[in-house]
Amino acid sequence: MREQQLQSLLQEMTLEEKVAQLLQLAPAFFEGAGSEGQITGPLQGMGVSKEEVHAAGSVLGIGGAEEAIAIQEAHMRNHRLSIPLATMADVIHGYRTIFPVPLAMGCSWSPELVEQSAAIAAKEASVSGIHVTFSPMADLTRDPRWGRVMESTGEDPWLNSLYARAFVRGYQGGQDGDLSQDKHRLAACIKHFAAYGAAEGGRDYNTVDMSEWMRREFYMPAYLAALEEGCEMVMTAFNTVDGIPATGNRRLMREMLREEWGFDGVLISDWGAVKEMIPHGVATDERECAYKAIQAGVDIEMMSPCYIRHLQELVESGEVAESLVDEAVLRILKLKNRLGLFEQPHRGADPEAERRIVFSDEHRQAAQQLAAKSCVLLKNEDVLPLDKAHRVALIGPFAESHDVLGPWSCMGVREDAVTLSEGMAAIAASHGMLESVPCSLEHITEAEKERAIEAARRAEVIVLALGEGSEMSGEAGCRADIALPSAQLELLRKLKELGKPIVVVLFNGRPLDLRVVDEEADAILEAWYPGSNGGAAVAGLLYGLDNPSGKLVMSFPYAVGQVPVYYNCFNTGRPQNAPDAQERYVSQYLDIPNEPLFPFGYGLSYTTFQYAQATLSDERLSMDGKLELAVSVTNTGVLAGEEIVQLYIRDVVGEAVRPLRELKGYRKVKLQPGETCHVSFDITEDMLRYHHPDLQFGSDPGQFMAFVGPNSRDVQALAFILTP
Amino acid sequence: MREQQLQSLLQEMTLEEKVAQLLQLAPAFFEGAGSEGQITGPLQGMGVSKEEVHAAGSVLGIGGAEEAIAIQEAHMRNHRLSIPLATMADVIHGYRTIFPVPLAMGCSWSPELVEQSAAIAAKEASVSGIHVTFSPMADLTRDPRWGRVMESTGEDPWLNSLYARAFVRGYQGGQDGDLSQDKHRLAACIKHFAAYGAAEGGRDYNTVDMSEWMRREFYMPAYLAALEEGCEMVMTAFNTVDGIPATGNRRLMREMLREEWGFDGVLISDWGAVKEMIPHGVATDERECAYKAIQAGVDIEMMSPCYIRHLQELVESGEVAESLVDEAVLRILKLKNRLGLFEQPHRGADPEAERRIVFSDEHRQAAQQLAAKSCVLLKNEDVLPLDKAHRVALIGPFAESHDVLGPWSCMGVREDAVTLSEGMAAIAASHGMLESVPCSLEHITEAEKERAIEAARRAEVIVLALGEGSEMSGEAGCRADIALPSAQLELLRKLKELGKPIVVVLFNGRPLDLRVVDEEADAILEAWYPGSNGGAAVAGLLYGLDNPSGKLVMSFPYAVGQVPVYYNCFNTGRPQNAPDAQERYVSQYLDIPNEPLFPFGYGLSYTTFQYAQATLSDERLSMDGKLELAVSVTNTGVLAGEEIVQLYIRDVVGEAVRPLRELKGYRKVKLQPGETCHVSFDITEDMLRYHHPDLQFGSDPGQFMAFVGPNSRDVQALAFILTP
Repeated sequence: MREQQLQSLLQEMTLEEKVAQLLQLAPAFFEGAGSEGQITGPLQGMGVSKEEVHAAGSVLGIGGAEEAIAIQEAHMRNHRLSIPLATMADVIHGYRTIFPVPLAMGCSWSPELVEQSAAIAAKEASVSGIHVTFSPMADLTRDPRWGRVMESTGEDPWLNSLYARAFVRGYQGGQDGDLSQDKHRLAACIKHFAAYGAAEGGRDYNTVDMSEWMRREFYMPAYLAALEEGCEMVMTAFNTVDGIPATGNRRLMREMLREEWGFDGVLISDWGAVKEMIPHGVATDERECAYKAIQAGVDIEMMSPCYIRHLQELVESGEVAESLVDEAVLRILKLKNRLGLFEQPHRGADPEAERRIVFSDEHRQAAQQLAAKSCVLLKNEDVLPLDKAHRVALIGPFAESHDVLGPWSCMGVREDAVTLSEGMAAIAASHGMLESVPCSLEHITEAEKERAIEAARRAEVIVLALGEGSEMSGEAGCRADIALPSAQLELLRKLKELGKPIVVVLFNGRPLDLRVVDEEADAILEAWYPGSNGGAAVAGLLYGLDNPSGKLVMSFPYAVGQVPVYYNCFNTGRPQNAPDAQERYVSQYLDIPNEPLFPFGYGLSYTTFQYAQATLSDERLSMDGKLELAVSVTNTGVLAGEEIVQLYIRDVVGEAVRPLRELKGYRKVKLQPGETCHVSFDITEDMLRYHHPDLQFGSDPGQFMAFVGPNSRDVQALAFILTP
Repeated sequence: MREQQLQSLLQEMTLEEKVAQLLQLAPAFFEGAGSEGQITGPLQGMGVSKEEVHAAGSVLGIGGAEEAIAIQEAHMRNHRLSIPLATMADVIHGYRTIFPVPLAMGCSWSPELVEQSAAIAAKEASVSGIHVTFSPMADLTRDPRWGRVMESTGEDPWLNSLYARAFVRGYQGGQDGDLSQDKHRLAACIKHFAAYGAAEGGRDYNTVDMSEWMRREFYMPAYLAALEEGCEMVMTAFNTVDGIPATGNRRLMREMLREEWGFDGVLISDWGAVKEMIPHGVATDERECAYKAIQAGVDIEMMSPCYIRHLQELVESGEVAESLVDEAVLRILKLKNRLGLFEQPHRGADPEAERRIVFSDEHRQAAQQLAAKSCVLLKNEDVLPLDKAHRVALIGPFAESHDVLGPWSCMGVREDAVTLSEGMAAIAASHGMLESVPCSLEHITEAEKERAIEAARRAEVIVLALGEGSEMSGEAGCRADIALPSAQLELLRKLKELGKPIVVVLFNGRPLDLRVVDEEADAILEAWYPGSNGGAAVAGLLYGLDNPSGKLVMSFPYAVGQVPVYYNCFNTGRPQNAPDAQERYVSQYLDIPNEPLFPFGYGLSYTTFQYAQATLSDERLSMDGKLELAVSVTNTGVLAGEEIVQLYIRDVVGEAVRPLRELKGYRKVKLQPGETCHVSFDITEDMLRYHHPDLQFGSDPGQFMAFVGPNSRDVQALAFILTP
C-alpha cells in the first residue's frame, strides 16, 4: 500500500476505530484464540467491548501459526475496514530454539553470532505468525541485584550498542531489508526507554534517578544505536525519568526521542505502564493516564484500557488534539504496511513451515555454538579440560536440570533442553566414567549430601553444577543477596574436604558474589543459562572439544555491599592507589577492596596468550588523522584458542569527569599453539567524543591514554595527545 | 570597621597579598604554632614561601588559646597591613566537651538541645581562640555504608533543615546576634555543598549523580535553611555534581548558590579539594584548578596551593579578572570584620577563661542530657529498665571502652569519657551487683569468651555492650558490610545459650544490619557514640533513671543488599502491597522484605502510648486556609515518658512522583502514667509545596493524605483535598 492510501484509510476511520487501533490486547480477548499469552503485569478487568476488540490494532503473545491465522481471519472479517492485526511477542533469546540469555550472549563478544541468533528467532517466530518482537533490551546495567540483568548485554555503552544493532539487524534483516518481502523477519522493538536498568537498589520497577548528563553519556547510546539501525519500534520503561514515569514523560519521548532524535516509528508502552501512572502518583485516574501518555507520544497502550476508555472523550472535549491520535494511528498503519500486512495479513504464518523450521537441528546447532562462545572460564588451576577417561562425579542441582533455558524463553520447552549430564555422557569415554548425582537447589537434604559424597569418593574429579533457578532472576527476580544459596556453598565445602579437584559450573542469570566458590573450587566455568543445547555446549567445553573464549560484560562484585561496581567508573578526587595517597583518606571501603572479584572483559582459556609490548604509531593524533595501536599476541600454550584483545581509552582531562577506561574496540583472534598474530586498532578523534556538561557531544584536545589487554584490568598503557 | 574602610583596605593590598588572603593553612605553617592540626587529606608539600604565610588569610585547627594568641600576635607583626588571621576548626559535636555524634543528636528530635550543644561548643572553642567552625554538615544521607552518616542528622530534608538551623543559631547566636560583640560565638560553615551524602556505593568521595530535580527536592533544603538562618560560610563538597567536581562547578556555585540564592558569604573549599580537580580529571594542573575554582566562586582554598602559586599569574595574564579576586578577598575581610577581628584580633581567646569554661561540669551535664535524649530503644521484651538490685554482667568491647566520643571529636580527650561500666557502677545498688568483663572488638579470644560466660553464669541479666570502633565510621570510614563484627555476634549467640535475659547496648556511628541482634537479644538500646558523659547517660537509661525517648532519623536496613532504603521513597508503578498486586510482578526482592528492619521515626519507651482516633478539622484545605489534625495520646504504662508524635503528609498525585510520606511536623509530649494529652498540628498549603519537573516550587490542588503516629510506619491515615 502506498502512503497516500494509508492517509485515505485513516480518513475513513471513525474516532472510535482510531482509538481502538492504539489498543493492544492478549490473544485471550480475540476470536480464534487457542491459548493465552504470557502475563507479566497486574492484569485487571480490561472492560473492553466486543466491538472494541474487533477494532483493536494489535495482539501480544500468539501461540503459533494456527492460532495466528485463526485470530487474523476472524479479525479481518470483523474489522469494518479490514485493517489487519499486528502480532507481537517477547521473542528475547530465541523463539522455540532457545539461545543463551542475552547477558551470556554478550560474553561471546560476537555480534555476528548474536545477529544470527536473532535471525533464527525471527524465522521461527515469523512462521509461527508473529510480526514484531519486543527485543532487544538495550538497558545498561550496573546492579546485579536486578533480576533483569540477564536480559541485558552488560555495563558497557559501546558494546551494548554493537549488540543492539546486531539484534536489530538479525530480526529485521538489515537496513536494506524489506519486511514486506522477507516474511522470515520481524520488526524489532528497542526497550526500555529510558534507563530502566538503573532501578534504585536493584529492585525492579523502582525509581530511576540520574543527571541528564549521565543518562546521555552512558544509558542512551545503545537505544540510539538501535534506532540508527532502523529499529521499527520503541518501548517505554516502567521507571521514572527526572521524576516522571517514562510512559508519561513528554520531554523524554516527544521532545527527545521524536523531535531531537527524529524517531517516527511506533512507541509502545510496556505492559500496563500507561495505567501505572496512577500508582506512580502522577495521574488521578485512567483518563489522566490517557491524556499524559498521548501527549508524551505513546502510540500503543499495552494491556491497560486508558486509551480505549477515555481517548475519544478527551478528543471530543478538545483536551487532546485529534491530530495526536491521527499521527499515532498513522504510525501504526505504516508499520503494518511495512510488514506487508495489508497485502498478506497472515504474512509468514505457515503451520507446515512452522513444523519444519521451528526447533530444527540447524537452529539447535547454532544455539549450541553461541552457548559455547558465551561461557566464561573464571578460574582453572590445572583441572580443565577433563580427561574423557577419568571418572567424573557430576553433582549438584544443575547436574540433570532442564532449567537451563533461563527467563524469557518464549516458546522454549524446558524438557527438550539438553542437560549437562546428557551433554557429558555423550562425550565421556564410557558410561562408567560419569556418575551423576542431582540434588535440590536451596534445601539440600542430608541424604542428597551423602549420595553426593559417596559418588565423589569414587571419582577422580568432581564437577559441581551450581546456580540459581531461573525464577531467581528475570523480570521481578531481584535478590538482595547475590551469593549462591547457602546450601550449595555448604555442599561445596563438604566436597572440598575430600581433597579432590573440584570444577564448579555455574548456571545463573546475574553476576554473583563468588568469594566462597573462588576459595574452594579449583576451576569455575560460568555457563549462564545456555539454552536449548546448553548441556552439550558446556560439556564440550569441560572435555576440551571447545576451548572457552567468553569474556565478562558485567563485573562480578566482590560483595553485594560494593554495588554498583563497574569498570568504566570515574577516578574521584581521592583515588585509592594514587602515588601520594594517604592510607585512610581515600575513596575506599575499610573491609573489602574497591575492585570487583572478576572485572569487565575477564575470561580465561585453556591456553595462554602473551601480549608483546604494544606500540602507538604516533604520540599525537590530529582531528582528522588516525593513530594505530599495534600489539602482537602469541598463543604460549599447547592448545588452539581464541583471544579477545581489548582496546580501552581514557580521556585524562575533560570538561566533565571521564571514565578510567572506556572500551573502544576489540579483536577476536584464533591462534594455534605457538602462533603469533599482530593486532592493530585505529584510533580516531570520533572515538574520543563525549557529552560535555552542556550536553554537547565532542572531543577535547589534550592528553589521552590507550590501553590494550585481555580484560579491563590487566592492560598496557600508552599515552597520546589529541592536537587541536 | 565600616564597609567603606574594608574597601580602602582592599585597595591598599597588592595582588600578592590579595591572593594570600585566599590561602588557608594548618597551624604548623605559622610562627607561634605549638601543635599540628588534624590532617584529613592527601597533604603534599605546599611549597609556600614565608612571605606568603605572612600574608595568609586563615588557619585551620588551632590547639588552644595560647597557641591562637601566639600565632595571631606573630601574624599581626608580620602582615604588612595587619590583617588578622581567621582561625577555623572542625568543631563538629563539641569542642572539648563532646556531645553525641550528630546522627545521635538527630534522634533526640530536639533542635533546642542541639542548639544548646552548639552554643556550648562555640563558647569552648571561642575562648580557645577559634573563630569559625566547619559545621554543621547538612548532607542528606541514605546509605549507611558511608562512614560519614555519623556526622549527618539523617534522611529527612525537613528535619535536617531544622537541625541545620539549630546548629547555626547555636554557633552564631541567632539572626540578631553580633559575632563582633558576642565573643563566645563562632561563625558557622554549612557543608558540603552539594549532595556529598549521596556518594555512590556509600564509598566516601565517590561519584555523586542525580537529577537536578532530586537534588533540589531532597538534598538542597537543609543547606538553604542554614543560609536563611544567616550561616556565614559554605564549604564545597569533594564529589562531582552533574559530572563536575563541586569545587570547580560554576553552575552550582556561582549561578545557583551566589546568584539564585544570593549567598554573599565566604565559600571555602574542602581540604585539598581545589587541587583534587586534577585526579578528578577536569584540570590538567594546579593552574587550571585555580582558574576553575575562582571562576566557580571559591574564596578560600583549604590546604592546597593552586591559588597561591597561580592566581597572580592568571590575573596578570588577563585570564582571570582581578575583580573575581577582589570580591573573594572582600568577602573574607567582611567576615573578619563581622567577627570583630580588626578591633580584637584575639577575639575570645583567653587562657584563663579556657581553663574555667572548657569541659566544665555544666557543659558535661548538658552533653549527658543530650546523650540521654539521643539513645533509641529498639527492642524491649520486659527486660529494661534494670533493677539496681539485680546482678548484672556487663560484657563486651564497649563495657569499659573510652571510645565513646565518636569520630570528629575535636579536642575531646578519650580518657576523660565516662565508660558504661563507670556509669552503671555509679547507679547499681552495690559494687557486687555489677561485674564487668571487657573484650576485644573484632578478634575475641577464647579466654575472653570464657571469662564472659563465667560472669554471665553468675548474673541475673546480661548487658552486652557491642559496636563499632570509632575508626570504623567517620570520614573515609566506609564499610561494605554493615553488620557488627562477626566475633561479637558469635559472643552474643554463645551467651544466649545460657538462657538469661540479654540487653544489647550498641555503640556505633551508622545504621547497622541488626538481624542477628534482633533475633538473639531481649532488648536493644542504640546508644551511638554518646560523648563525654555517655556512659553515665546510657547507664541512667538502662537503670530507668531516664526513660528512652529517641527516635531514629535514618532507617536501619534489613540487609546491606537493600541499600538505599529510606522512608520518603516513591510508590513506583508496581508497589508490593497494592490490593490488586500480582505475587511476582511487583517491585520487591525475592529474598528479603522491601522494608527496613527499623523504620525512620522508630523508637520505644519503657512506657506505652496509645493513640486515639485522629481527626481532621475539615476534608478540604483552601490555599490560604488551614486544617487542624488532632489526636489524643495516652500514656498507658506505669512510668512517665516522652513521646514524639509525628505528622507525615503524602501528595497523592503530583506532576512529578511524590514520596509515600514526608515528615511535616512533630510534637514532643511528656506524659505521666495514665495521662492523656491532645496533640494538634496545623496543615497549611505551604507544607504541600514541592519541586515540579520544571523545578518550580509550589503545590497542586488535589488529594492528600495526612498520617499521624509514633513512627513513619505505624500511622493512621486521613485524607484531605487542597482546593484551588
